[in-house]
Amino acid sequence: MELLKKRILEDASVYEGNVLKVDSFLNHQLDVGLLDAMGKEFKKRFSDVPVTKILTVEASGISLACMTAVYFNVPVIFAKKSNALNMEEDTYNSKAYSYTRSAEYIMKVSKRYIDNNDSVLIIDDFLANGEAAMGLIEIARQAGAKVVGIGDAIEKGFQKGGNMLREKGFKVESLVIVKSMENGNIIFEE
Amino acid sequence: MELLKKRILEDASVYEGNVLKVDSFLNHQLDVGLLDAMGKEFKKRFSDVPVTKILTVEASGISLACMTAVYFNVPVIFAKKSNALNMEEDTYNSKAYSYTRSAEYIMKVSKRYIDNNDSVLIIDDFLANGEAAMGLIEIARQAGAKVVGIGDAIEKGFQKGGNMLREKGFKVESLVIVKSMENGNIIFEE
Repeated sequence: MELLKKRILEDASVYEGNVLKVDSFLNHQLDVGLLDAMGKEFKKRFSDVPVTKILTVEASGISLACMTAVYFNVPVIFAKKSNALNMEEDTYNSKAYSYTRSAEYIMKVSKRYIDNNDSVLIIDDFLANGEAAMGLIEIARQAGAKVVGIGDAIEKGFQKGGNMLREKGFKVESLVIVKSMENGNIIFEE
Repeated sequence: MELLKKRILEDASVYEGNVLKVDSFLNHQLDVGLLDAMGKEFKKRFSDVPVTKILTVEASGISLACMTAVYFNVPVIFAKKSNALNMEEDTYNSKAYSYTRSAEYIMKVSKRYIDNNDSVLIIDDFLANGEAAMGLIEIARQAGAKVVGIGDAIEKGFQKGGNMLREKGFKVESLVIVKSMENGNIIFEE
């Protein structure tokens, strides 16, 4: 997606440890016009699959999921993050590891909002090692729902998540794929 | 706002401790069509004030803030919650108390995204004791920005926040005000 590539080149910063900071438009300050264009693009890329729910995880996935859901005319459900190990009976729960925070966390979704009639589209801001996506897939699995696609704004193509998910047979659509960002030079896959 | 009142009466649940659970449409599963209508209503109610930024706090304020920002054509900034007491030099910080979690937390906003040219509209899902709103007002104050309004979906009229903020001179717009919810009967102010 050219608009997003352009914005990344203009406004993103690269930090040590393969951190791509996009908090001026994607996950602290939010450019809703850009997010709207991204939602429209997801609708185009997933126009061939049935979608009944959009699933994401708090907090940085919520805005993109909402702006995408407008085009699909379906509800968003965001998984809540918790450090609590106690599993509640009325939630689906999965574990994921955050490389950014170097810590495990639990994702929880109420059993009331996803079931085995659902076709779930997973939306998130980043796809790197695929930890968050795998956690959300596990929640869909517990619900008996089908995961019909995984859409993310920025895939770090040099990390394993995208290819791991594609090899498992998921339809993965990344609006941009960063091939490398050595020495602060951001190179996209074409 | 009649549409929101109707939805609350249909889908919300009242729990002990004055908890109004609206997670089927407002803060876990998100009805983006309803959120869009709420954003439009905020635009109507704040049409007389200049707005350059919408400010909210993660996670449950993000969706409503985004759907509102579309109508104002301005960016959203969401404050990040942190338990960390260390104050970073590049962020504005304020403390708030969460009655839901019985704990204090710190809100942080990067200094890059609000400054003294900004006219800030604060948007959140609930207004009860006004703790989150006061925290966001403090962040705007640190930035030298003007708070031109405070909009929330649901005000608990029997708690002090709304009137406290109005007495301080803020323009507060609540899409619905719950007057009481004794014995699970939700009564709105007209």
